[in-house]
Amino acid sequence: MFEARLVNSAIFKKVLDAIKELLNEASFDCSESGMQLQAMDSSHVSLVSLNLKSDGFDKYRCDRNLTMGMNLTSLGKVFRCSGADDTVTIKAQDDADTVTFMFESKKDKISDYELKLMNLDQEHLGIPETEFSCIIKMPSGEFARIVRDLSQFGESIVISCTKEGVKFSAQGDIGTGNVKLAQTNNFDKEEESVIIDLQEPVTLTFACQYLNSFTKATPLSNQVTLSMCENVPLVVEYQIPELGHLRFYLAPKIEEDEN
Amino acid sequence: MFEARLVNSAIFKKVLDAIKELLNEASFDCSESGMQLQAMDSSHVSLVSLNLKSDGFDKYRCDRNLTMGMNLTSLGKVFRCSGADDTVTIKAQDDADTVTFMFESKKDKISDYELKLMNLDQEHLGIPETEFSCIIKMPSGEFARIVRDLSQFGESIVISCTKEGVKFSAQGDIGTGNVKLAQTNNFDKEEESVIIDLQEPVTLTFACQYLNSFTKATPLSNQVTLSMCENVPLVVEYQIPELGHLRFYLAPKIEEDEN
Amino acid sequence: MFEARLVNSAIFKKVLDAIKELLNEASFDCSESGMQLQAMDSSHVSLVSLNLKSDGFDKYRCDRNLTMGMNLTSLGKVFRCSGADDTVTIKAQDDADTVTFMFESKKDKISDYELKLMNLDQEHLGIPETEFSCIIKMPSGEFARIVRDLSQFGESIVISCTKEGVKFSAQGDIGTGNVKLAQTNNFDKEEESVIIDLQEPVTLTFACQYLNSFTKATPLSNQVTLSMCENVPLVVEYQIPELGHLRFYLAPKIEEDEN
Repeated sequence: MFEARLVNSAIFKKVLDAIKELLNEASFDCSESGMQLQAMDSSHVSLVSLNLKSDGFDKYRCDRNLTMGMNLTSLGKVFRCSGADDTVTIKAQDDADTVTFMFESKKDKISDYELKLMNLDQEHLGIPETEFSCIIKMPSGEFARIVRDLSQFGESIVISCTKEGVKFSAQGDIGTGNVKLAQTNNFDKEEESVIIDLQEPVTLTFACQYLNSFTKATPLSNQVTLSMCENVPLVVEYQIPELGHLRFYLAPKIEEDEN
Repeated sequence: MFEARLVNSAIFKKVLDAIKELLNEASFDCSESGMQLQAMDSSHVSLVSLNLKSDGFDKYRCDRNLTMGMNLTSLGKVFRCSGADDTVTIKAQDDADTVTFMFESKKDKISDYELKLMNLDQEHLGIPETEFSCIIKMPSGEFARIVRDLSQFGESIVISCTKEGVKFSAQGDIGTGNVKLAQTNNFDKEEESVIIDLQEPVTLTFACQYLNSFTKATPLSNQVTLSMCENVPLVVEYQIPELGHLRFYLAPKIEEDEN
Repeated sequence: MFEARLVNSAIFKKVLDAIKELLNEASFDCSESGMQLQAMDSSHVSLVSLNLKSDGFDKYRCDRNLTMGMNLTSLGKVFRCSGADDTVTIKAQDDADTVTFMFESKKDKISDYELKLMNLDQEHLGIPETEFSCIIKMPSGEFARIVRDLSQFGESIVISCTKEGVKFSAQGDIGTGNVKLAQTNNFDKEEESVIIDLQEPVTLTFACQYLNSFTKATPLSNQVTLSMCENVPLVVEYQIPELGHLRFYLAPKIEEDEN
């Protein structure tokens, strides 16, 4: 028997919105410690890693480890049916081929949706612990905005990080663009701060398309963390308050992209 | 001479928005008692019945009975030209082949639009008085939401009504969905109540497509009434405050739809 | 060296939005007195004339006259990157083949975008001073609304101006529409007033398509001025507060359009 309850179903909806552009289908691995999902995007370039801790749920029970493969478009339809203030309960039998989502509203309305489970091939990738050259913490909305803006000018974005700040750059046929953020000195509003933890300066190039997909997670958190190191995938991490985190991994482009 | 004046032209605009998805053209029958419209939708499955009482208008004069056939797309264009706070006056001569809509705003702006009338074949259907097995009164927005949500899962919605409440269900390839509304016990907010007047329990199946079209009338009223009885068309009724009502009729599907 | 600074970059963005439907590319002529742009729309029917006075800028320096040809779609992309509260600085060297736009936000964010300049054929049209038969000053939003509404009924709009007011008319297959605005007597709210300066009554016909394009300038100003005279192009003028003006010129249709 698996049962997980979240008073705020909107969080799960935001998680789905954050990953369904990259993943058509995915397996949720449920165990005593929580729900996890790890999958390469459909073009096998970037990696999505979701971790929801069992003690972040309002109720959580998992008698036996369980892998639930789902079509994320179908799952998206189910969560489109949830109201903003609904509670969600996810339920599955140990040997089930379906999973049930029950939404309860404050009014006398109860909805339940049953989805068929899928058997998906899964390859679990070990993600090595990395010592990063720099870790940038910045407002998630600002990161989304910069990626969107610079995507107009080229297919790649160069991210350069020094002690003073971060620079995002793009160039293409119509011209070039550079956006510079200085490290914040005044920490009145932590959410708006740009904080850089630097071992050594780094300059790396990434494909706009994937960065843009990652920023679909912006509604999950006010802050995003970018961890960079030469020859190692960039990690873009969104904390999910009290529940866990969503991470995206993307390898840097090796040659500089002139487009 | 026909002349009808509504200080709040937005009501008429909402009526139009409610019916123009189902009807391409329609005849308004004007008499001393008011304006009426009755027509099968363009695929001849559902029936639309509109009744606007003469004493609900701010001014109403109808010297001779008059039938005004109009293209509802053209009429929609005319009402797109009305401001939110405009007064509308509808005018036609007894033997006219045009009708005029005059909009007056609080500022010194007067607009008039003249539409050509059409001769439309009309079959007036007698709608027999029916004793219904159950009559459900519920928030119109909730009804629209449920129909929209369940339409994602199948082409039909099963509505089951008992003393305890109403259940809406749909099933299809990706799974099944059920939404249950309990009858309201606490009547503090009448607009939000679900009230069931039950003679005997009923379970009937209806095509989502038409139910969805009916819910275009949601802005007309906070409440909707669903009247159901075995082997008799469902009646979906929206009261138009102080002016009349808009009713939709839809026959139940005879065999259960597995799709 | 050319350098022009506007604390409110949103004004320049609105100017761009106002002209980029009519013009694909255009040359900005920069001199000590300010920035000017004059160009026929891409179908060579209407004329756009923009004048931004040097003393309306927060900083302005132009050592040598300079003509900067730009693709307005590219320029639109640059200004899409500006935040609502950003300051913009436009910079070019005297003999440059690029121009730089620098945006500064109140937070520690600085962006710069470099665009390639283009060599555009230019024909400077002398616009003769005209004594107009009537000059109508009216709310710009009302003008945009009327043009949009009447465009539904025909391809042309007839504008008739007398001492009492202005009438806009259109007719087509589905019917006719007339919108009458009376001259305002009560001048409490100047922005909402309709003021007519009349030498003699005029009735002229214009193509909806161009009038609709002109109204893209509505966000620039609460008021618009229409100047009309027999056999002379209509002038539609939007004042840009403290900075200058944007004018559109459109010749009247000679025969009455029956469509």
